[in-house]
Amino acid sequence: MSVDPRVYTMRRQAILPTDIPEPCRKSSTQALARQARLTKPNGALGALEELAVRLAGLQGTGRPAIERVAITVFAADHGVVAEGVSAYPQAVTRQMLRNFLSGGAAISVLARAIGARLEVVDVGVVEPLHDCGGLVVARAGAGTANFVEQPAMSEAQLEGALNAGREAIERVQTARAQLFVGGEMGIGNTTSASAIACALLGADPAIMAGPGTGLDNVGVAHKRAVIAAGLSRHRAALGDPLEVLRRLGGFEIAALCSAYLHAAAGAIPVLVDGFIASVAALLAVGVQAAVGEWLFYAHRSAEPGHGQVLGALGARPLLDLGMRLGEGSGAALAVPILRLACALHGGMATFDEAAVSGPAP
Amino acid sequence: MSVDPRVYTMRRQAILPTDIPEPCRKSSTQALARQARLTKPNGALGALEELAVRLAGLQGTGRPAIERVAITVFAADHGVVAEGVSAYPQAVTRQMLRNFLSGGAAISVLARAIGARLEVVDVGVVEPLHDCGGLVVARAGAGTANFVEQPAMSEAQLEGALNAGREAIERVQTARAQLFVGGEMGIGNTTSASAIACALLGADPAIMAGPGTGLDNVGVAHKRAVIAAGLSRHRAALGDPLEVLRRLGGFEIAALCSAYLHAAAGAIPVLVDGFIASVAALLAVGVQAAVGEWLFYAHRSAEPGHGQVLGALGARPLLDLGMRLGEGSGAALAVPILRLACALHGGMATFDEAAVSGPAP
Repeated sequence: MSVDPRVYTMRRQAILPTDIPEPCRKSSTQALARQARLTKPNGALGALEELAVRLAGLQGTGRPAIERVAITVFAADHGVVAEGVSAYPQAVTRQMLRNFLSGGAAISVLARAIGARLEVVDVGVVEPLHDCGGLVVARAGAGTANFVEQPAMSEAQLEGALNAGREAIERVQTARAQLFVGGEMGIGNTTSASAIACALLGADPAIMAGPGTGLDNVGVAHKRAVIAAGLSRHRAALGDPLEVLRRLGGFEIAALCSAYLHAAAGAIPVLVDGFIASVAALLAVGVQAAVGEWLFYAHRSAEPGHGQVLGALGARPLLDLGMRLGEGSGAALAVPILRLACALHGGMATFDEAAVSGPAP
Repeated sequence: MSVDPRVYTMRRQAILPTDIPEPCRKSSTQALARQARLTKPNGALGALEELAVRLAGLQGTGRPAIERVAITVFAADHGVVAEGVSAYPQAVTRQMLRNFLSGGAAISVLARAIGARLEVVDVGVVEPLHDCGGLVVARAGAGTANFVEQPAMSEAQLEGALNAGREAIERVQTARAQLFVGGEMGIGNTTSASAIACALLGADPAIMAGPGTGLDNVGVAHKRAVIAAGLSRHRAALGDPLEVLRRLGGFEIAALCSAYLHAAAGAIPVLVDGFIASVAALLAVGVQAAVGEWLFYAHRSAEPGHGQVLGALGARPLLDLGMRLGEGSGAALAVPILRLACALHGGMATFDEAAVSGPAP
């Protein structure tokens, strides 16, 4: 049975949004003017000033605010772990799902601490959890296939994972969140993300692949060889970002990519986490460049390929703390910075209000 | 009238603490072991792990916490502004004191947002404020003298400013703060701080002096010449850190230096702000090296000399957001990172508790 590829393209496009709104230039101009009147030397708040001005444009108000934050962690398994590319056994993906929901994982602790809504979505771990209260089940399959041997996903599976991202953002909108953070969990997913980044950027696996959760040098060399084999296997089909995603991706990466696009389409700013989330952002930008305006970058991960991906995205992340955990943890850590940027923008007095002199003439 | 310099040394030493406690190695070892059992790849939380472990040692508990934060902003004027070294008029120091207390300054907004105690101390603005509710008055003088012409402070003034720092920490202790943040305000104080850093590090003003609140290139060149003249004027007397402070310093820098030493002596960890605060830390370490164990560094300022000072302190600051405001603002912004590091350390489940597998053998 052979289907015309244009049919798939149309079906994918039907899942992903077509219109991404532009930021409101009037609001960002208004915010920029306000920054210049606040009681501080102009520019002295550095990146915080730019954050407030960008958020003003995205929220369409001169006084932006980030109160309600929604974090969605997408979890899925990866067939490529059969090649021995991770320091941890595959069962950890499923075990961590429970840990997310019972409150013991890093992202659970951080979500509580910053008062964020946390949702956990099973997009396709190998073995489903049946007794896990609070878990959103949106399975695209029982883990992906091994991309060294075949495409990681069927077309239907790709569409299922993209739909999982779309539906997650519908719930984020219902919760009236002012910021979306996407997280991921999936043993093997730095291998998948590295392969995608290599395909999209034409980069060498030697630059892009790193230790992930903790491979040694021999393990990293093997991981690079596995990625090279996957790229070689699918070489003829890597021209389109969604086809790259289908062949090399993970369900959670597809869900993240879709969630970013739908968040932007719904006018919800996004705080992108680390390496894997940034690769999902790279895919999203490849699908529709306008999404880029809605993306903030939280941190520079210790995973060596992240620098390449951030560079390609023109991203200047807020934090550089040597983190490499995923789950959305780096983004959660950066949320207070966005909030404080808004608090300063809205709460500081102007030179006039405070009767403070400006620079000497 | 000539006084034996040893008398001054003894009087200064009587104001500054002699005993700075060592961190509790048992608690930090305990915390390090806990970090290795938490449900994450070891090291995946990067700098947050080290923060939690260090705080454990300083607080003498396996589960550190940063709930109560005390911010003290010391404000004073600088005689060297007569040389035309600042983009802002001197009156701004006094005007900003009101702004701090009425809640419109950056540090006021940040203190509210992070739930910190904020205290503002007049250590010596030129013209005292008489009707400013909440202001702590601990004036060492009506601004310093112009260090190009004479020592910035008399011996009695230095002692007054050191005492202001000591007394501030007594109030911080009464408030049972678990973290001390020192801020500063003083038109001209990047000139003073740069001169001190040059003296302590044997550095050239061309490397150390920058635009401060916003000098242009001509202004920066002039500021460097003024600093060079000051260094030349006092060259013979720059062997001792407290004498460097007396000759080139500001009252607020002296108060900060003293506050850091007393905080450490009182077993209160310190989060050091930007360029001027780091120069005060450099002085404190020069007076008593053991204080260094109690200091965390919040951020890398946009002021170009900060990198030199941080390097000399062996500091790896948490943030690099291009801020250059002072007031303690960069440190306030980093407080949530310390808090979240503690929350993760105390709140995450261990591999055993969560029944999550460790790395594959």
